[in-house]
Amino acid sequence: MKEITGGVTAAQGFQAACCEANIKYKNRTDMAMVYSQIPCECAGTFTSNVVKAACVQWDQKIVSSGAKMQAVVVNSGIANACTGKEGFDACEATARAVEKELGVPYNSVAVASTGVIGMQLPVEKLVAGVSAMSRTLAHSAEAGTLASKAIMTTDTINKEIAVTFELQGKTVTLGGMSKGSGMIHPNMCTMLGFLTTDLAIDKALMQEALSTVVKDTFNMITVDGDTSTNDTLLLMANGLAGNEKITEKGEAYDTFCEALFYVCRYLARKMAGDGEGASKLFEAKVVNAKSKEDARILSRAIVGSNLSKAAIYGCDANFGRFLCAMGYSGAQFDQEDVELFFESTAGRLQVFDKGTPLNFDEELAKKIMEAREVTVFVDMHEGSEEATAWGCDLTYDYVKINADYRS
Amino acid sequence: MKEITGGVTAAQGFQAACCEANIKYKNRTDMAMVYSQIPCECAGTFTSNVVKAACVQWDQKIVSSGAKMQAVVVNSGIANACTGKEGFDACEATARAVEKELGVPYNSVAVASTGVIGMQLPVEKLVAGVSAMSRTLAHSAEAGTLASKAIMTTDTINKEIAVTFELQGKTVTLGGMSKGSGMIHPNMCTMLGFLTTDLAIDKALMQEALSTVVKDTFNMITVDGDTSTNDTLLLMANGLAGNEKITEKGEAYDTFCEALFYVCRYLARKMAGDGEGASKLFEAKVVNAKSKEDARILSRAIVGSNLSKAAIYGCDANFGRFLCAMGYSGAQFDQEDVELFFESTAGRLQVFDKGTPLNFDEELAKKIMEAREVTVFVDMHEGSEEATAWGCDLTYDYVKINADYRS
Repeated sequence: MKEITGGVTAAQGFQAACCEANIKYKNRTDMAMVYSQIPCECAGTFTSNVVKAACVQWDQKIVSSGAKMQAVVVNSGIANACTGKEGFDACEATARAVEKELGVPYNSVAVASTGVIGMQLPVEKLVAGVSAMSRTLAHSAEAGTLASKAIMTTDTINKEIAVTFELQGKTVTLGGMSKGSGMIHPNMCTMLGFLTTDLAIDKALMQEALSTVVKDTFNMITVDGDTSTNDTLLLMANGLAGNEKITEKGEAYDTFCEALFYVCRYLARKMAGDGEGASKLFEAKVVNAKSKEDARILSRAIVGSNLSKAAIYGCDANFGRFLCAMGYSGAQFDQEDVELFFESTAGRLQVFDKGTPLNFDEELAKKIMEAREVTVFVDMHEGSEEATAWGCDLTYDYVKINADYRS
Repeated sequence: MKEITGGVTAAQGFQAACCEANIKYKNRTDMAMVYSQIPCECAGTFTSNVVKAACVQWDQKIVSSGAKMQAVVVNSGIANACTGKEGFDACEATARAVEKELGVPYNSVAVASTGVIGMQLPVEKLVAGVSAMSRTLAHSAEAGTLASKAIMTTDTINKEIAVTFELQGKTVTLGGMSKGSGMIHPNMCTMLGFLTTDLAIDKALMQEALSTVVKDTFNMITVDGDTSTNDTLLLMANGLAGNEKITEKGEAYDTFCEALFYVCRYLARKMAGDGEGASKLFEAKVVNAKSKEDARILSRAIVGSNLSKAAIYGCDANFGRFLCAMGYSGAQFDQEDVELFFESTAGRLQVFDKGTPLNFDEELAKKIMEAREVTVFVDMHEGSEEATAWGCDLTYDYVKINADYRS
């Protein structure tokens, strides 16, 4: 497997475009479209929030119906959540516009939205946007990058990646982009993520691969504990790589899963480190837990705690907060078994040793915590399972961004 | 029932004292003691955190053993959590000091701590504090108030209350104090709360009353979603009111429960409104839910969401965030049934009507949200159960306080 330049347009047959639709933002792109020259098998994971945005319900129907998918249209101004029938009509109008412009069936067009909840989308602007984008679709790396910028909201950097791997003498490409900065606590999915590949693979297997990989990637990040109404991750596969179609588990499937994990982990970490107001990536690695689920729960609790996040921001080695978060996580354990360390490029330091606090070097602790990426490493000494979760620090800017988001 | 001046010393036979033990804070009181002239029946609820402070384990033993309780010693500098055997020894040393000074059995002395996790308590300072306080115990309202101030950490106001009610021609008094500002997300209990009454009541009934009342009072508040290692709520009853001992449910028990609810609700609301960095009390009232548990879950999710809390701080009527929080709370419901209102002393305004956002008056919304206490009122239209939860807004000051708590 090799990382290459590019994102959603890296795989054969995929094109992208974006435009300034003026839905909420002015003087910046706020719509994007990803298009495959031929229909794709598709898989998706979606928010577990009971309040699902209209577009989430629209996409779920496409993915579960077994229909092919050929295009995705995204806007980054309004979430189209809590919008009643009018919200559904906006999804259909967008898809019908793509049908009219590009001649693909409207029920093969996915739509995705992110932004303010409880406002209606301006349908004429969406339709005009689709029309403009249909004329500028391109298979270039630049088109993919511009699309990844158009879907940003409070993100400070765009997130994209592509890899290639060999399968039966054929080169397969997998690329993707994602966005997400606030209201990030994915459950079965991330905020918005779009993956494209020219692999030929059975739809059910592709869904299984995606659902499995999501558990240890997008589902292991948190910015603020708020599971969005709009979380959507879509994977489109058009088969143009020319490999023999993967129809069962085995070496080829494993190779694909490995590439998928790499891409998803990369995007997930990028999202966590670019959380709203974040100044740091905050990683928690829990090893030797009793079960995989315990390891996940414990590591997520550490990066999810407001108090832990504030300590990371303040470079304060207040390790009791991490133990406290583990304690209320729901996992059972004995604090007498636990060892806790701080890690970063500046060093590694143990601060808690099986029930007893250590007299550690505060200077070194501060230095370790001042790094751009800080890891809390916890050895449970109770089993052999491990998990890693990613979050960010809690800063003044998080409050600032969210105290007047709508204005 | 009548509210009167006073707190933990309001009931007959209860005394309090405090002192400057210099455990963490300088030039302020940081230790308090509550003492009953005669042994008390006791009840308690404690943190559900797996990582329990040494003092929590000490108190649980007294409450569950059926022993009487005669004194409580509190310090507000160090939490005595994650402190191993040395932490337990500090509890015993404190209790033994009270035995020595006041002649009560050491196993009838509860201890409570709040402050930094993972540091050891200075035992000599505790013992000296007990000695000093033993000489200044007083049954005055002032002594109770000073004790409620000595247990504060990042609290900005002390919290105490007392009520009287009539039972069989006798006047019964119930008083209490509590503290809590950060790491507040009680589960079966609050941060620290101490209730005293001269009622005569059976121990098991008293525990049942406390456990029931806690569910809709202390367990319905949240500041930051972090369930502390130290949450402790103790109720001591010395029987000096002279009522016929309550040994079964009935009118007398109900009267007591009503007073207990009033006192606990008052202290819980005070704690929520005085959350770390808070500028407002943020209340969520959910009515007509399918079940009581659903109503509790939904209202707690609303006040627990960082995004909701930031919107309350910014006076931004971004109601989608409340619906989003309800959606990921774990309760099942249909957004097409939901109505949502903002309420405060400045007015009442509906913003969401059964699945559809309303075009509401933004000026009025802002005015309503600028009040010192803001309520989000949600009608589920799915049943007849209701619950209220209390929290506070998320402000710059919360981050500031917690980014360098230890320094």
